[in-house]
Amino acid sequence: MPIRIAILIFDDAEELDVVGPYEVLAYWALTFPDDQVTVECLSADGAPVRCAKGMQIGAQGDFTNVSQADLVIHPGGWGTRALMVDEQHLGRVRQWRDDVPVMASVCTGSLVYAAAGLLRDRPATTHWASLNTLAELDPTIRIAAEDRFVDDGDIVTSAGISAGIDMALYLVARLAGVERARQVRRGIQYDPEPPI
Amino acid sequence: MPIRIAILIFDDAEELDVVGPYEVLAYWALTFPDDQVTVECLSADGAPVRCAKGMQIGAQGDFTNVSQADLVIHPGGWGTRALMVDEQHLGRVRQWRDDVPVMASVCTGSLVYAAAGLLRDRPATTHWASLNTLAELDPTIRIAAEDRFVDDGDIVTSAGISAGIDMALYLVARLAGVERARQVRRGIQYDPEPPI
Repeated sequence: MPIRIAILIFDDAEELDVVGPYEVLAYWALTFPDDQVTVECLSADGAPVRCAKGMQIGAQGDFTNVSQADLVIHPGGWGTRALMVDEQHLGRVRQWRDDVPVMASVCTGSLVYAAAGLLRDRPATTHWASLNTLAELDPTIRIAAEDRFVDDGDIVTSAGISAGIDMALYLVARLAGVERARQVRRGIQYDPEPPI
Repeated sequence: MPIRIAILIFDDAEELDVVGPYEVLAYWALTFPDDQVTVECLSADGAPVRCAKGMQIGAQGDFTNVSQADLVIHPGGWGTRALMVDEQHLGRVRQWRDDVPVMASVCTGSLVYAAAGLLRDRPATTHWASLNTLAELDPTIRIAAEDRFVDDGDIVTSAGISAGIDMALYLVARLAGVERARQVRRGIQYDPEPPI
């Protein structure tokens, strides 16, 4: 069965929120074609976006196809400040939540999910500097401040920016098994050694 | 003193080779403006490039300005297979080596440096799957197979793909001190926990 993955991109999305998971998932898709995985970056209108640190990233389609995805990833970044009060976007997110089996977020992407009501009575996380905002948006959320990512079944949230890489590897393991995830990890040589 | 950083982009550059260091260095530049750091992605002609896994990334300038940089980062990816036999590109790399105080590479970017003769009698590394190729390109290179990155002063090379993040944090520490690098690490919440 094909696995269709959509990564949402928008102005002021954080660069690594997008490209960390993209690298993991697209490496999986292209290295193991028999797994029938596709990964696309989709923007609202299909046009390129200007990310939070200035990088322009192109879209491979627009939001009309998000509902057909098996997994959606909502990155964070400064742009979520606008999206979390954008009723059109929140309406789209609620619709996708009804249509898409697994909704994942990186960093402050979970603030948008919280504003849309998706995280009611659920465990979730976000960037460490936004944990208070997450709790204020919906006091029913059980804040998982210590977790790198939180799998609550149909919703998976991650901590800040680089945590999207760990979450994406976890999603590969969940969807295709631990051995496949290990192959992807080896491929991108993800044996991190923070030097400081 | 301003610090100008150029990240080279080209068709079939590996996405995370580019965006891992970009996130680290641009986070530094934008969060600490008093440090006077600028980070730009530059392509040969200033046009967007199509990366190895399909993502289109825009350029903020062309190669005419690379020689003015204080630090150049050459990503890897499938596109280096063409660049390492492209005499025009190898000539540019040799010129930059003369003009730029620090030349760094991610993943198979070091194959291009080796082909250009930059790594003669030096220690260096690359993606684990290309260590043999690196040694064949220039048998005088002292292959540092176990290192996440290698600082040889004016040339710094890293291991595969995700190792560019570690190298970039190290370069922040080298250029601005350990405390600044720790602030950047905290900002991008780089406390990696590979889940498999």
